[in-house]
Amino acid sequence: MDSKDDKAEGVVVLDVPQDHGVNFSTRREFGTKLKSGLRETFFPDDPFRQFKNEERRWRRVVKGVEYFVPIFEWLPNYSMRLFWSDLIAGLTITSLAIPQGISYAKLANLPPVIGLYSSFVPPLVYAIFGSSRHMAVGTIAAASLLIGQTIQTVADPVQEPTLFLHLVFTTTFVTGLFQASLGIFRLGILVDFFSHSTITGFMGGTAVILILQQLKGIFGMTHFSTKTNVVSVIKGIIDNRHEIRWETIVLGVIFVSFLQFTAHVRERKPKLFWVSAIAPMTTVVVAGVFTYLVKGQNHGIKIVGHLDKGINPLSIHYLNFDSKYLSAVLRAGIITGILSLAEGIAIGRSFAVTANTPHDGNKEMVAFGLMNLCGSFTSCYLTSGPFSKTAVNYNAGCKTPMTNVVQGVLMALTLLFLAPLFGHTPIVALSSIITSAMLGLIKYGVFVHLFKVDKFDFLICMAAFLGVIFLTMDQGLMISIALSLLRALLYVARPATCKLGKLDDSSGSYRDVDQYTPTTTYPGVLIIQLGSPIYFANAIYVKERIMRYVRSEKDSDGGVEQIILDFSGVTSIDMTGIEGLLETYRVLERNGIQMLIVNPRLEVMEKLVASNFVDKVGMDSFYLNLDDAVNATQYSLRSLKTNNNNINEDTTHQQLPDHHA
Amino acid sequence: MDSKDDKAEGVVVLDVPQDHGVNFSTRREFGTKLKSGLRETFFPDDPFRQFKNEERRWRRVVKGVEYFVPIFEWLPNYSMRLFWSDLIAGLTITSLAIPQGISYAKLANLPPVIGLYSSFVPPLVYAIFGSSRHMAVGTIAAASLLIGQTIQTVADPVQEPTLFLHLVFTTTFVTGLFQASLGIFRLGILVDFFSHSTITGFMGGTAVILILQQLKGIFGMTHFSTKTNVVSVIKGIIDNRHEIRWETIVLGVIFVSFLQFTAHVRERKPKLFWVSAIAPMTTVVVAGVFTYLVKGQNHGIKIVGHLDKGINPLSIHYLNFDSKYLSAVLRAGIITGILSLAEGIAIGRSFAVTANTPHDGNKEMVAFGLMNLCGSFTSCYLTSGPFSKTAVNYNAGCKTPMTNVVQGVLMALTLLFLAPLFGHTPIVALSSIITSAMLGLIKYGVFVHLFKVDKFDFLICMAAFLGVIFLTMDQGLMISIALSLLRALLYVARPATCKLGKLDDSSGSYRDVDQYTPTTTYPGVLIIQLGSPIYFANAIYVKERIMRYVRSEKDSDGGVEQIILDFSGVTSIDMTGIEGLLETYRVLERNGIQMLIVNPRLEVMEKLVASNFVDKVGMDSFYLNLDDAVNATQYSLRSLKTNNNNINEDTTHQQLPDHHA
Repeated sequence: MDSKDDKAEGVVVLDVPQDHGVNFSTRREFGTKLKSGLRETFFPDDPFRQFKNEERRWRRVVKGVEYFVPIFEWLPNYSMRLFWSDLIAGLTITSLAIPQGISYAKLANLPPVIGLYSSFVPPLVYAIFGSSRHMAVGTIAAASLLIGQTIQTVADPVQEPTLFLHLVFTTTFVTGLFQASLGIFRLGILVDFFSHSTITGFMGGTAVILILQQLKGIFGMTHFSTKTNVVSVIKGIIDNRHEIRWETIVLGVIFVSFLQFTAHVRERKPKLFWVSAIAPMTTVVVAGVFTYLVKGQNHGIKIVGHLDKGINPLSIHYLNFDSKYLSAVLRAGIITGILSLAEGIAIGRSFAVTANTPHDGNKEMVAFGLMNLCGSFTSCYLTSGPFSKTAVNYNAGCKTPMTNVVQGVLMALTLLFLAPLFGHTPIVALSSIITSAMLGLIKYGVFVHLFKVDKFDFLICMAAFLGVIFLTMDQGLMISIALSLLRALLYVARPATCKLGKLDDSSGSYRDVDQYTPTTTYPGVLIIQLGSPIYFANAIYVKERIMRYVRSEKDSDGGVEQIILDFSGVTSIDMTGIEGLLETYRVLERNGIQMLIVNPRLEVMEKLVASNFVDKVGMDSFYLNLDDAVNATQYSLRSLKTNNNNINEDTTHQQLPDHHA
Repeated sequence: MDSKDDKAEGVVVLDVPQDHGVNFSTRREFGTKLKSGLRETFFPDDPFRQFKNEERRWRRVVKGVEYFVPIFEWLPNYSMRLFWSDLIAGLTITSLAIPQGISYAKLANLPPVIGLYSSFVPPLVYAIFGSSRHMAVGTIAAASLLIGQTIQTVADPVQEPTLFLHLVFTTTFVTGLFQASLGIFRLGILVDFFSHSTITGFMGGTAVILILQQLKGIFGMTHFSTKTNVVSVIKGIIDNRHEIRWETIVLGVIFVSFLQFTAHVRERKPKLFWVSAIAPMTTVVVAGVFTYLVKGQNHGIKIVGHLDKGINPLSIHYLNFDSKYLSAVLRAGIITGILSLAEGIAIGRSFAVTANTPHDGNKEMVAFGLMNLCGSFTSCYLTSGPFSKTAVNYNAGCKTPMTNVVQGVLMALTLLFLAPLFGHTPIVALSSIITSAMLGLIKYGVFVHLFKVDKFDFLICMAAFLGVIFLTMDQGLMISIALSLLRALLYVARPATCKLGKLDDSSGSYRDVDQYTPTTTYPGVLIIQLGSPIYFANAIYVKERIMRYVRSEKDSDGGVEQIILDFSGVTSIDMTGIEGLLETYRVLERNGIQMLIVNPRLEVMEKLVASNFVDKVGMDSFYLNLDDAVNATQYSLRSLKTNNNNINEDTTHQQLPDHHA
């Protein structure tokens, strides 16, 4: 060490530049680094760009309001032509919203009318604050089931229906507050940790347990498992098999077949989207009329029951923050909140990409949050942007969030005048609608694709899928996310490295010798490309990996005299990483091997300088290009050096004996 | 999309190679990838290299035994010359082990003799299985306090001393089992997540609360706070201030000054290491004789009390796995186990690097585990490789683990013949020894260095330091580790990217424009270097970041027609990452911007091919070198292309209009 320190000091007094063109001096102030770090973490999309550069003050205010309340962006340019499109789309999604609202409310053990209420206020709120052009607001099956499952652990929906209802409103309030805060504090980063694989697996698993739950309605049973996992449900069906009615099964099979057929039609001919869009409503009407005519209740065909006329009553005074229930409410609120965000944002984004329309994740969070907050004050429960409804909306030709206004108004009219009619809907029709919708969410094709492309992604997906089916919904989700995080940590704990060789083509690039052959290698010189940050979780690994390269080189080629580390891919380094690197340097030095570092990036160089690493190793160990470093190691190539950047002769020196450790 | 698919299919029938030298075909079997992944995760140091290549079977067995039981490696070559060195070092560390053993046992609320027992059996076990040449086995202060604190939550050390003692043995058993399992299952990766910053902060914080605890002994108090945080301790002292004795304070100040002076001597003249090494023993002897002569007990000077003669009794039948205590035992065992491993391995490694001797983290874990397992059977509590003792051992010139044998034998002799004498040691002497040892563990210099080099590392360090002082030891540790993990996740959620430009030197490399100037840029062409893996946690970020580059380019230069993404630093990709990339490609395409990808690495290319990404984007979007890609984008440089790898003319095409979105 001491000798190296002397050397580093010596460098300063020499006239010959020893830095090989490497820039050691670009340093950023702490404030600059912090600001840039915070910006990259929380504002990667630079949200204020639209108005911060406006010079006139009032323009800035106007643009700011337009930014935060998107309705001001699109409404001024709204036209009748756009309205006709939106009206048709709005009619279509309302015809879907009525049966879905009633069905999903039943999943959450709520009175069916709550499902209808939830398609009135939230769509209006979303129309004001939402940034997506295609999102159709509504309740979602998975979250409905999850809320019901969680809240029924503290309040029985049959024994204490009022308490249960009030706790669900409170959950919705928590969800809204949580989602809006995520958006305001720019914490969209949390949603990033829900990978496609987790969502696909979770959705598939939820679809399976939802279909299992529908067997109650399709079999016409009264008693059923209160747990959702497949083992309990099958056991529950076998135990109560005497309740099974053939009449409802026949109806169920007919309805599911009809709905599946219309879905198939849509898939084959996207222009006939409306066939599948109005199919649920058709099912409800046909089933209701049929049951009424044949007096189905005498044949074991149950109906929804009484539905009150009238729009949403206020519910703000029902919010219940009793500490006895708070933990269940918080859990349900936060899990469903983040889940519905992850799904809703992913769906909104994918349609925005397809149609090249704007979409802003953080604004969506605020919009979702506000719509659930307002919902919790007006007898609604959790709403989001369900995939099926949004896809129908898109295919129906929606142009702006005005479709949600249409949906809200139509739903209000339905509530005011038609609600009692829907009380005659047979349960089996609703079960068939859910079953059919869920069949489309089990994406076998994606499972196979994941298996082919990435086994770990497949594992993450299957963990969610099987976890939801065999354990509970939140356990499945948690296991899958834990696996994703484990993978993220493994990525950084075991970063990929590779040995480089020079290609024989005219470019003379250095590439992975396992990927490209033939390549030129230089006897005694080992070139290693490091990837990803070097820091506490991988500092020891990186050292071990380098030593293993040295050993395997010795075994095959008989010795290493210089190691060139390509730092181009090292995006960051921390103190443990620097210590590890210094340790590597010392171990190599003791084995008579010189370590050269090529092209450290800005962030890395700053820290190497600040921590005195550069002084300890010597500036002359740093090179800007692999070629310069390789040339410096080659006696035979000395003539080349005159063409390069003033490489000091001193750096090719010291062919230390290779004394094996 | 469809048009792209056609294009990709078209490529196959063309005779002109369109791959620009990029290798699309190197694919590894799943088995190969899995094997290599597992090897990198669990066997990065290739531990079996020493014997797996041996051809003769018996040589392989011999080498295998030598590998797993390191004593067979060094004992056959052992000589009298080595023994003299080891004897002196062994004598020195034993003189340290006696007072430390007694003091630290008191920290854990254990009978003092347990501390002496713990320096007999464990060192002998370590001598057989340990791979480090310099490790001196003994009890450690932080873990002693932590065990005491945790176990006293379920068993009172004063009311139920026997139960307390048995639970501590059980904790030691759990620690041993846990450590050995980590080593056997090659889970050293867990220890990697304890960063230098965490350990430094935790050690410093522990030193502070340990010094606070010593005020009881130095002030000669009887009643004291049972909590360790600084507020409780100061409140406890103020409440019981009438118990403070000036006699012990005077003695304490003298002893601490003496010990600090000897430490100072060692720092200035490393050759005088023995002065500080025998200082604690000197303190004990002088203090004991003095107290005996002046009848100190009449002046409030408390002594250790009765110590039995005789070596360790068996304790295997005392292990208590009652479920009532199990959770506390498991918690204490696992936390102290991983903590003492992290410290012990880091210390062993740093001395191994300094002296260029072997050191194997996983073997150390097994050795530590076995020594604690054997310890728990023979009335010992947790042992590890404490820094102070190991440093003394190293400075005393130890050569092999034989020093631990010497320590064990000398301790056995002490237990057999001298134990009762040490019963006369005044508590204040022990408190002074701990205080003095702990003063050296608060590393102000490192704190300052961390603050200078890396603010986040400083934050992690301070979280541990302040957390331990103001909350509890485990909370401080957990907060710090959580921050480290958060940082690791942030690293991967927000990977560094930079804009590249061509340097004007002869090498023509492409470098970060913020780091190197002046650089050549090409109008309409944006070159971006991506770092780290692209996957679920950063897929959206990467897209946003690229779009921001495009926007800022438009603002300044008036348009982007091609984006070149340098993938050299992208070590891995997952499904969400591929989807995100495809989304980016489509958004860019819609904006009339062409996306070119340069040099994807092996792992990345495999997945891009398997997921059909290459088919969708077209093989002609991939380039091997930045230069080739840049040339392809430049009409004006068309003449250059004949010198390069058969670049198809088709690729420079499509100067799509830059219709602003």
